[in-house]
Amino acid sequence: MRAVNALILERMGSPVPLIPKLAKYLVEAGGKRVRPLVTIAAAKMIGYSGDAHLKLAAAVEFIHTATLLHDDVVDESDLRRGKKAANLVWGNAPSVLVGDFLFARAFMLMVDAGSMDALHSLSRASSIIAEGEVRQLAAKGDIAASIGSYMEIIEAKTAALFASAAEVSAIVADRPQADITALDTYGRELGLAFQLVDDALDYGGLSKDLGKNTGDDFREGKITLPVVIALQNGDETEKRFWSRVMTDGEQDDSDFDTAMELLEKHGALKATLAMAEEKAQIAKDALSGFPDNEWKSALEELADFVVSRAS
Amino acid sequence: MRAVNALILERMGSPVPLIPKLAKYLVEAGGKRVRPLVTIAAAKMIGYSGDAHLKLAAAVEFIHTATLLHDDVVDESDLRRGKKAANLVWGNAPSVLVGDFLFARAFMLMVDAGSMDALHSLSRASSIIAEGEVRQLAAKGDIAASIGSYMEIIEAKTAALFASAAEVSAIVADRPQADITALDTYGRELGLAFQLVDDALDYGGLSKDLGKNTGDDFREGKITLPVVIALQNGDETEKRFWSRVMTDGEQDDSDFDTAMELLEKHGALKATLAMAEEKAQIAKDALSGFPDNEWKSALEELADFVVSRAS
Repeated sequence: MRAVNALILERMGSPVPLIPKLAKYLVEAGGKRVRPLVTIAAAKMIGYSGDAHLKLAAAVEFIHTATLLHDDVVDESDLRRGKKAANLVWGNAPSVLVGDFLFARAFMLMVDAGSMDALHSLSRASSIIAEGEVRQLAAKGDIAASIGSYMEIIEAKTAALFASAAEVSAIVADRPQADITALDTYGRELGLAFQLVDDALDYGGLSKDLGKNTGDDFREGKITLPVVIALQNGDETEKRFWSRVMTDGEQDDSDFDTAMELLEKHGALKATLAMAEEKAQIAKDALSGFPDNEWKSALEELADFVVSRAS
Repeated sequence: MRAVNALILERMGSPVPLIPKLAKYLVEAGGKRVRPLVTIAAAKMIGYSGDAHLKLAAAVEFIHTATLLHDDVVDESDLRRGKKAANLVWGNAPSVLVGDFLFARAFMLMVDAGSMDALHSLSRASSIIAEGEVRQLAAKGDIAASIGSYMEIIEAKTAALFASAAEVSAIVADRPQADITALDTYGRELGLAFQLVDDALDYGGLSKDLGKNTGDDFREGKITLPVVIALQNGDETEKRFWSRVMTDGEQDDSDFDTAMELLEKHGALKATLAMAEEKAQIAKDALSGFPDNEWKSALEELADFVVSRAS
């Protein structure tokens, strides 16, 4: 991971001062680097001895960071990685453009890695992410959303990049298709678990710890699984409540508390986290065909860690 | 070009309805398709017989369209290709995300084209474009801008993609480096000419035809070559005028007329177009080593056409 971090800092360099300034602001805020970690650990697990995986891991983090910068413009977010969102510090324009820069640099890194199949995987994932984001935008405030449509959205906007981050290791290592597919499954299910937990954490998770970074989805009218579950089990009065706050966006100070009560009443956060655990288990099971080693253990622990964040 | 248009329509497809709707809005508004035309004509000129150039041409147009969508968010533009800008119709969020989608699809097309060297060229160009856009943003209202810094910005934001659009044809055709370099020069100089003319047209060009789409740069405080020339030749009173309208953004109804008078006084539009003609000539000269055929003539005529737009 130290090599990946060095590569990230090197490749975000530009003679245009605002670019490294803004990119560093976000990168140093220190995402959890979960996605590149998946690429590195998977490559090590299967005994890959080259160095293309480092470039692909950095590329994956660049794609992710680019989508964060653009998401902040799209969502009009206030905070990102615990810091004031970049678009509020420098304005929308640099966030859009530096996102584009990082996206382009991600593809340069992939070209350097030299695998056309890895490029295929990550460019396809990038296209799917954008589709997922547009779907999520179109679904804003739609209280008729089903669990199925929610799952499709998070599979596209989050799980596709995790899946690609995992499978590219087997691709550059020239492993058989079965290994590529197994790692794709690991990454995809891990990504679903990750997003489900994130969506539960936006309502404080099981501990109902309502610190900073909670309530964003609620304020933005994003219909995540906890809300879908509460809606499906709610009566007409409750549906009218969700319709007012999520569809019409009419929210007052007490509404978030009411929302929390409704989620509690219908066990919505518990159910969301149960589904996350299920996905994490499928992720771990997908690794069963690989020989046991410390890297396989690391990937299994990562799946457990992702779920444990919310309890 | 019909094949490229068909490919463009096919590859912008998505099951997410808003994506083709927004992409079509822009693509059908009918850009001039100058960039893909360069790729196609160059490939034909050198006798390339495969079909990778079609995919690369479509990829080039996607990259260009993606940057237009993002530029509109960055510039807060009102009009694009003579229609209301997409961000004003659907909001900033879809413009950002559909731009990302088209950018990702561009890379999928390049992967399909199968040339790692072409991918290198176009991903590098994409990174340079973003750098150029950030530089342009940082230079907004900077009345100390030099001709050199202006040229660097337009080389990055516009000419780099033209250069890549031209050279990828020789790359997929496996031509010697000298041919690749010659086409890179053709594209780069054509791109510079194109942008110089655009910047002159924003003040009505030589005919001073102030129809729609003029005055955007002035309103946005973009310091283009005509203004740089007027500034370098202006007295203190004039400098104070430019500083007020461009740096401080304090503009009233008569200011654009005053700006036009100052450009006229210093022959700024004429000088800008003379530089464009020079660049177009260098572009044509770069083709001298290629055998004469109808496609070479088409590329030469394109260089003439680009310049003739403003007279």
